[in-house]
Amino acid sequence: MSGEDAPAQQQNDVDQKQETKPSEEPKAEPPKEDPAPAAAPAAEPAATTDKVPEEETFTYRALVLTGYGGYDKVKLQVKKGKPVVKPGEVLVRVKACGLNFADLMARQGLYDRLPSPPVSPGMECSGVVEAVGDEVIDRKVGDKVMVLNRFGLWQELAVVRASHTFLMPEGMDFKEAAALPVNYITAYMMLFDFGNLRPNHNVLIHAAAGGVGIAATQLCKTVKDVTVFGTASASKHEAISQGGVTHTIDYRTKDYVEEVRKISPKGLDIILDPLGGSDTHKAYNLLKPMGKLITYGAANMLAGQKKNLLAVAKNWYHQFSIHTLSLIQGNKSVCGFHLGYLDEETELITQTMNTILDLYKQGKIKPHIDSTWHLEQVGDAMRKMQERNNIGKVILTTDPMPEEEKKEEVKKEEKKKEDKKKDEKKKDDGKKEEKKDEKKKEEEKKEEAKKEEK
Amino acid sequence: MSGEDAPAQQQNDVDQKQETKPSEEPKAEPPKEDPAPAAAPAAEPAATTDKVPEEETFTYRALVLTGYGGYDKVKLQVKKGKPVVKPGEVLVRVKACGLNFADLMARQGLYDRLPSPPVSPGMECSGVVEAVGDEVIDRKVGDKVMVLNRFGLWQELAVVRASHTFLMPEGMDFKEAAALPVNYITAYMMLFDFGNLRPNHNVLIHAAAGGVGIAATQLCKTVKDVTVFGTASASKHEAISQGGVTHTIDYRTKDYVEEVRKISPKGLDIILDPLGGSDTHKAYNLLKPMGKLITYGAANMLAGQKKNLLAVAKNWYHQFSIHTLSLIQGNKSVCGFHLGYLDEETELITQTMNTILDLYKQGKIKPHIDSTWHLEQVGDAMRKMQERNNIGKVILTTDPMPEEEKKEEVKKEEKKKEDKKKDEKKKDDGKKEEKKDEKKKEEEKKEEAKKEEK
Repeated sequence: MSGEDAPAQQQNDVDQKQETKPSEEPKAEPPKEDPAPAAAPAAEPAATTDKVPEEETFTYRALVLTGYGGYDKVKLQVKKGKPVVKPGEVLVRVKACGLNFADLMARQGLYDRLPSPPVSPGMECSGVVEAVGDEVIDRKVGDKVMVLNRFGLWQELAVVRASHTFLMPEGMDFKEAAALPVNYITAYMMLFDFGNLRPNHNVLIHAAAGGVGIAATQLCKTVKDVTVFGTASASKHEAISQGGVTHTIDYRTKDYVEEVRKISPKGLDIILDPLGGSDTHKAYNLLKPMGKLITYGAANMLAGQKKNLLAVAKNWYHQFSIHTLSLIQGNKSVCGFHLGYLDEETELITQTMNTILDLYKQGKIKPHIDSTWHLEQVGDAMRKMQERNNIGKVILTTDPMPEEEKKEEVKKEEKKKEDKKKDEKKKDDGKKEEKKDEKKKEEEKKEEAKKEEK
Repeated sequence: MSGEDAPAQQQNDVDQKQETKPSEEPKAEPPKEDPAPAAAPAAEPAATTDKVPEEETFTYRALVLTGYGGYDKVKLQVKKGKPVVKPGEVLVRVKACGLNFADLMARQGLYDRLPSPPVSPGMECSGVVEAVGDEVIDRKVGDKVMVLNRFGLWQELAVVRASHTFLMPEGMDFKEAAALPVNYITAYMMLFDFGNLRPNHNVLIHAAAGGVGIAATQLCKTVKDVTVFGTASASKHEAISQGGVTHTIDYRTKDYVEEVRKISPKGLDIILDPLGGSDTHKAYNLLKPMGKLITYGAANMLAGQKKNLLAVAKNWYHQFSIHTLSLIQGNKSVCGFHLGYLDEETELITQTMNTILDLYKQGKIKPHIDSTWHLEQVGDAMRKMQERNNIGKVILTTDPMPEEEKKEEVKKEEKKKEDKKKDEKKKDDGKKEEKKDEKKKEEEKKEEAKKEEK
């Protein structure tokens, strides 16, 4: 959360590597009059030249993943030089950014769609078009847009392909716009493309208070007589009930499989599974004939703020593997979904987005914002999401943080450090206690052994 | 193909065992005035009693699987006693029966939905309602119906649940009616429920000249701009092209994966896979993002008329098993389908059947009959299908075989036996020749070895 500067040249080197990705634009070369190296999609600025002095002094703030690990690995930095806009691209002045589970995985090094650090993460944002590249005909300066990109959107300025932007409808604010793309496209494609959602279906939505969960619930409600089973901790039940969940299940105190069977003994038509591991097995067994299991993550892999090798291994070990014979005899479908691997499917995404925006305009869906954080607070924002304390979308805003808040933030940081020290001391004390206990137990055992011998 | 009689009591014993299957009717007990044991769905007649002399003299012809093995294991027998119709059931005078791949698998003991022999196979037929049980309100004597059942329809009389019958539309003949249920329900549910077929999709249909293949092609043509890739041996290409296949592929001489990639480099939206084994792997790799692979059989397991353990083992070994991580990264769907395991899903099947019959009435689909065979010729009928010599549906008719044809049939049988003997002799001669060759080769090797030593 400090304002360290990564060496600008190093950042550009990273971008160069990312360029190996196939490009959809026929002419991807930079304009001839500009000798700067070509920028990757959503790239940091190109190296500056002597000819353009303004670009030397030009700076903007960006969140940068500096290495894999805990929340503090994402740092707020200042980048220099105005980004270059190539043909087919637009420059967006970012207003708000969405946080996604993939960003949390990425921070731990568990998401292969993000290039190696240092790199700016961020798959979705909203903002205003500030410059337009050649060959772009359907975007103009001043357009308010939503953006979907493989990475690179958690910064004040982002260069992206024009085809990765979507015009914001009238009446939508920047926070809503930043909350919509990933969650709603994911929920829509899972439910309507893979799931083939139809009237009278019953659907299980895990993490129903999360971003995808809320989007999926709203989309289920656009179809007649769909029953939604939603899991969440008890404190969130009122919110998800109001959002449209028919049967709420507290997964922390109850077995969701039993709860579903009580109400729907034959099982379910559609299950959205963001958990992975052994929960995928449970989901498979909960499907009724012609049922569809759609797995879209491995949240079970995320245990703690740093990569937890045991959790990863456990998830891998329990990973669901299915034989076709079982599928045939059960008349079942198993699907995998991840929007991050669909970034080349521009046409498909655009079609889906248009459908979603129509639903928005009709008032049938509306993103639910949990909380909004300044770029300086990205660690806390990530923590809130990772610890499942959110209801709906966690948003970052690029609005500058008021000086007052900044001071408080510094105090908080200091308090955190103190708490950490205290915690560590407690742990040490705890260990000592444990050792004492062990010693005691061993002595007791010895006593018993002696008695038995007698 | 002979007219042996299995002991009637033994047949009934088999039926008794099948009764353990859960029944949908609330009152499954036989009427109190009738002490005869309850008949299973599509059952052979109940044991006769002294009170009803007519039922003792009553006989009808039935095909019976007498044991697992080759084509001759299905025998034409005469059964005694009029079948008892329980509440919710109807008695159908069968006119025509459809042959399905599952029947071929069942004969080899590879299909677990058929009870142990002796048992009458047959999953679909057409006929006329001859008697109606209590509580049946939507069928009456004289109704022309199609029937779908787990087994037991390859006989002149069959007792089935009324809910397993569907009224034949005006203008449909009995052969068409016997050809329709299994193939069209299978193709429809795979394409529209699992596959979510939409305009501009491209679809691969293996065995495009088979019953399901032709049904699937016709159904694809009901959706705008669907491209159909169809595999079949070259001699069938004209027929399947006329039927609607856009690109024909001779799988015997060409690599279908390469052929598809030439035309559709990004891959396919939907693949119907009746083959299993290594072909399922190929299909999976041929899917484009959001593509659906629907596997519905293991035809690769069927090699020769008797169970081929090597083919079964090979199919098992190469059986497709998929990890969720691969599904997620590929955005792919793998589904399994088999109508034989959906026999309790009456509502789903009825809905689907109504949709299919609407398409039939609109002239958009029409079963294609390959050939019609008498019950006495069931072996040849099965052989034609198993050796992939059919284009469309192979049908059995219960019409009595003219005496002239019967005589010819006997001659044919004799000729077959002679040919078999000749074949065996040839094989023996061949082996002798091989041995000679081997001896010669060994001698040559010895000569060479001697030369080298020198």
